[in-house]
Amino acid sequence: MKPEDLPIGLFDSGVGGLTVMREVARLLPNENLVYLGDTARVPYGTRSGEAIRKYTWEATTFLLKEQIKLLIVACHTACSHSLEMLQEKCPVPVIGVVRSGLETLILHARGRRVAILGTPSTIGSGLYQKIIHQHDPQIQVFPVACPLFVPLIEERLFDHPATQLIADHYLHALRDQHIDAALLACTHYPLIRPIIQQAIGPKVILIEPAAAVAQETLQHLSLSNTLRQNKQPHLRFYVTDDPEKFRLIARHFFGSEVKKVHTANLFGED
Amino acid sequence: MKPEDLPIGLFDSGVGGLTVMREVARLLPNENLVYLGDTARVPYGTRSGEAIRKYTWEATTFLLKEQIKLLIVACHTACSHSLEMLQEKCPVPVIGVVRSGLETLILHARGRRVAILGTPSTIGSGLYQKIIHQHDPQIQVFPVACPLFVPLIEERLFDHPATQLIADHYLHALRDQHIDAALLACTHYPLIRPIIQQAIGPKVILIEPAAAVAQETLQHLSLSNTLRQNKQPHLRFYVTDDPEKFRLIARHFFGSEVKKVHTANLFGED
Repeated sequence: MKPEDLPIGLFDSGVGGLTVMREVARLLPNENLVYLGDTARVPYGTRSGEAIRKYTWEATTFLLKEQIKLLIVACHTACSHSLEMLQEKCPVPVIGVVRSGLETLILHARGRRVAILGTPSTIGSGLYQKIIHQHDPQIQVFPVACPLFVPLIEERLFDHPATQLIADHYLHALRDQHIDAALLACTHYPLIRPIIQQAIGPKVILIEPAAAVAQETLQHLSLSNTLRQNKQPHLRFYVTDDPEKFRLIARHFFGSEVKKVHTANLFGED
Repeated sequence: MKPEDLPIGLFDSGVGGLTVMREVARLLPNENLVYLGDTARVPYGTRSGEAIRKYTWEATTFLLKEQIKLLIVACHTACSHSLEMLQEKCPVPVIGVVRSGLETLILHARGRRVAILGTPSTIGSGLYQKIIHQHDPQIQVFPVACPLFVPLIEERLFDHPATQLIADHYLHALRDQHIDAALLACTHYPLIRPIIQQAIGPKVILIEPAAAVAQETLQHLSLSNTLRQNKQPHLRFYVTDDPEKFRLIARHFFGSEVKKVHTANLFGED
């Protein structure tokens, strides 16, 4: 197989990473893509850093056996805890959702006040706060953990009044803080973007990292001469628990129907 | 060690089983108890039967090494999928939350119309429906999956308006069904009992299995002459992820402070 025909691997704890895959497929419509959702152990957002690093390495090992040419960590929680380890241990280039989103966020921090919305584990890792301050110590960061957003979205309550109440519960304190921009630091959150916008206030710019990740991937493949062009792509989906459940919800995240989903067994991969 | 001094083991996917442990400790205040919460893989409620049986067996193996004299499966999801397997493979007696709760429920089914509220996996297993119909084929069963109750409770939104809205969302269709009684078939649900009562209607009797489980345990230990009496009990708590997070929320479920929590490693137990 030619190097450009090798697939790009995308990994997420569940279904959320499909919002990233959607952007990658849009910008790079000829690339072969292989997606792995660790649905047997979702959500990662409430787990310890140690557990998350172990699971992420098992997933990476699985994708490396699929001969990927590049790995996208399409999960903020996994990325927050594992990106450095992966960039050290992984034999192929690794792109994570964390840095891509942050660069866009910092661009929009005119008043130097930004919010990070994520899972408890992403927020607890402190990684976003650290990177922003390395970049510009003047920026004031307001990190907010929103643990119920993922289960509400997985229940498809995208515009239910309860989802609005929960968004108000998490975000009302931010309304007096004159935030410039907020990063949606979880791949699920774009699905309730209007509700988040209403809760956080209309003037706050909401940043989704998916488009930036796709852009970075394009750049990397161009520079390394491994861009695949003028060919039909092959898309492959793996999950670690019930494929049918994933298939049914996937279209909300991926934007079109996902026809076939395979089962992956990660246990004992290392 | 004397047979009566061996501990009773309790197993749950997370923190919910503590509502059962609380009842057992109340009724059997001299018993040594050892609790295991598989917090690294909670929630079980959205996983496949196969995954749940694997996790439950790993947990059982861990508790057997603690030399338990009796096992209480304090998790409806685990119980729905694994009770038969455990009763076959486990060398000590096994008491599960499923049958204990159902007997009380059937007692209250005067108009022969009952509801079962549980996680998607518990409801999907069909076990409750099957056992009720074996008992009395005339009883009409209304099973309702309530996937957001556990995350809302773990966020401690016990009386938040969003929790009421979600309860209405799941239960409003039951209000016209003239239900006699509803089983809270998840050990988390007792913590939002008033909200469930309001959503389902004031006339419906809500059944919690924990008291029945404690009663059954007392009966079993009396009959086998292994009741521990007039001694201080020793309580031990294990979890598979962050002990501190468990410790902080545990008091809501157990009714008093949990001082020390240990970490258990289940991987590779079989």
